[in-house]
Amino acid sequence: MAQVSRNKQVILTDYVTGFPKQSDMNIVDSTITLKIPEGSNDLVLLKNLYLSCDPYLRILMTKDTTAELGALTPGSPLTGFGVSKVVESRDPDYKKDDLVWGMTKWEEYSLIPTAQILFKIEHTDVPLSYYTGILGMPGMTAYAGFFEVGSPKKGENVFVSAASGAVGQLVGQFAKLHGCYVVGSAGTKEKVDLLKNKFGYDEAFNYKEEPDLNAVLKKYFPEGIDIYFENVGGKTLDAVLLNMRVHGRIPVCGMISQYNLDQPEGVTNLAHIIYKRVRVEGFAVFEYYHLYTKFLEFVLPLIREGKIAYVEDVAEGLENGPAALIGLFTGQNVGKQVVVVAHD
Amino acid sequence: MAQVSRNKQVILTDYVTGFPKQSDMNIVDSTITLKIPEGSNDLVLLKNLYLSCDPYLRILMTKDTTAELGALTPGSPLTGFGVSKVVESRDPDYKKDDLVWGMTKWEEYSLIPTAQILFKIEHTDVPLSYYTGILGMPGMTAYAGFFEVGSPKKGENVFVSAASGAVGQLVGQFAKLHGCYVVGSAGTKEKVDLLKNKFGYDEAFNYKEEPDLNAVLKKYFPEGIDIYFENVGGKTLDAVLLNMRVHGRIPVCGMISQYNLDQPEGVTNLAHIIYKRVRVEGFAVFEYYHLYTKFLEFVLPLIREGKIAYVEDVAEGLENGPAALIGLFTGQNVGKQVVVVAHD
Repeated sequence: MAQVSRNKQVILTDYVTGFPKQSDMNIVDSTITLKIPEGSNDLVLLKNLYLSCDPYLRILMTKDTTAELGALTPGSPLTGFGVSKVVESRDPDYKKDDLVWGMTKWEEYSLIPTAQILFKIEHTDVPLSYYTGILGMPGMTAYAGFFEVGSPKKGENVFVSAASGAVGQLVGQFAKLHGCYVVGSAGTKEKVDLLKNKFGYDEAFNYKEEPDLNAVLKKYFPEGIDIYFENVGGKTLDAVLLNMRVHGRIPVCGMISQYNLDQPEGVTNLAHIIYKRVRVEGFAVFEYYHLYTKFLEFVLPLIREGKIAYVEDVAEGLENGPAALIGLFTGQNVGKQVVVVAHD
Repeated sequence: MAQVSRNKQVILTDYVTGFPKQSDMNIVDSTITLKIPEGSNDLVLLKNLYLSCDPYLRILMTKDTTAELGALTPGSPLTGFGVSKVVESRDPDYKKDDLVWGMTKWEEYSLIPTAQILFKIEHTDVPLSYYTGILGMPGMTAYAGFFEVGSPKKGENVFVSAASGAVGQLVGQFAKLHGCYVVGSAGTKEKVDLLKNKFGYDEAFNYKEEPDLNAVLKKYFPEGIDIYFENVGGKTLDAVLLNMRVHGRIPVCGMISQYNLDQPEGVTNLAHIIYKRVRVEGFAVFEYYHLYTKFLEFVLPLIREGKIAYVEDVAEGLENGPAALIGLFTGQNVGKQVVVVAHD
């Protein structure tokens, strides 16, 4: 007879308005039968190990989101990227104890469509949690956004916002490896120190302590910005637009400063898109997963040889998941925010 | 001895703030010696026939413009696109009585660097004034912006603002010829009628009579917009962003609604650039002039066979130039605004 297990879950209590708060999520002790139901051969049973806290989740917590990224449903567990171990699979591609990453749920065990597994994890000489970050969706986001959308050239001037975050810390290092001059912004002194001392940014500043973002950008980019890797939107974007170089590119990865606002901030300097022939381009990482093998060939040696730094902020236990996720939007996290459900 | 002629000029009196007004420009009777000075073999002497009123001129009337398009200088004649006849040239490429178009000045005769001539006019079976519009910079702008930047596909949904203007009227017709569904916006009933009855737009509306631009776009684009040809910026852009389709493109040609504002309007819906993976791209026509011959091969047959309509708004006499230019910003003009300096 199939084993029944406790299944702790993080449930979305209701659609979120404004900043997400603890009461928007609820920890419940559910149960799960550790067996794929008869006739459900398209499902896989996973034990979740690491969950990824990503800013885009906030977009999916809004009712009638116009984002075509799927949505979260009140009363159900959160859905998101995670690293999991296969408990049972009827798909020949996956067998018991395989490690995988893809779209799972915020709970201890998940029964999900096999199609939601994105990749089997083949390289385990690196921490498994890395597959929620540098080796997972954020890593691919940094890679595709910088190299494919940004079209960087050696010697170009690159600015990254949210620069110590999961994606930003990688974009900055990729840009340095590519021979670019790189400046990052972040929201605390600790993060600014990380940018300069750990991630190798040429310059970094705390945007919360700069009353004039235009002036600070002019100081660090006297010749202007070739690539702005956009993670935040709002006032930062507005100041950047005044400082773009001709044929500059703005890969738009996220606008985290705007997700919690009822009325987003107005950006006023868009005419500079004409003056400087700037290309502003939104992208979604899932359109670039065909490059994942190529990406691993690029990034795994860098990790193994210590040529790239990677900082994680690890919350232990599913019950600490909501606070970890909420912390993204107040800048609590330092580096990639991960939630550990189980270590193996 | 060289002939001395009267040379009526339109002088910029001072940098402009807010909407340009009659007192920002002055008509003066100057004189000119109709002879290229000795040693100035890089200059050409032109008799100006038709001058082009273009929205971008407003940008150049601002002090310390950050636009890298050159600037206008108070106390000097306006500079802009025009059709001219060569009076004297020491360049073997141009001889007396050749017709040319390029960057000239708002005056009867101009002594300018030969390099400012863009093209010799080879086809004179069409009205010469067309080289300020459909066969000149605005025509190339519509062509490059729509086909090169917009990357249109047959059957796509296209929205054009300032749709009856010099560029807009052509974009709409190019889009129809390409097999697209095309909707345009303009600011008077007369212009809306033109869009539907003369330029063949599938639908058109008067943005000044629509309290809810988002709603009207949803009505005309139930499946969303693939290409928005951006001429106006501000509120229209903000509503468009809510209605873009996945992988939509926004060639940014101009933002005429913003040029006269001390503080541009804030655009709030930029996060939709991420949600829909939209590409917003500023462009400048001068980077596409290498396509001019190809463009003429495309558009001249359309004109000769009556397959494209073209509406000009002609102001007679240089003294009526300032009012014609000012009228662009209040929507006085119907179609391409031209100033006739001389008919031959």
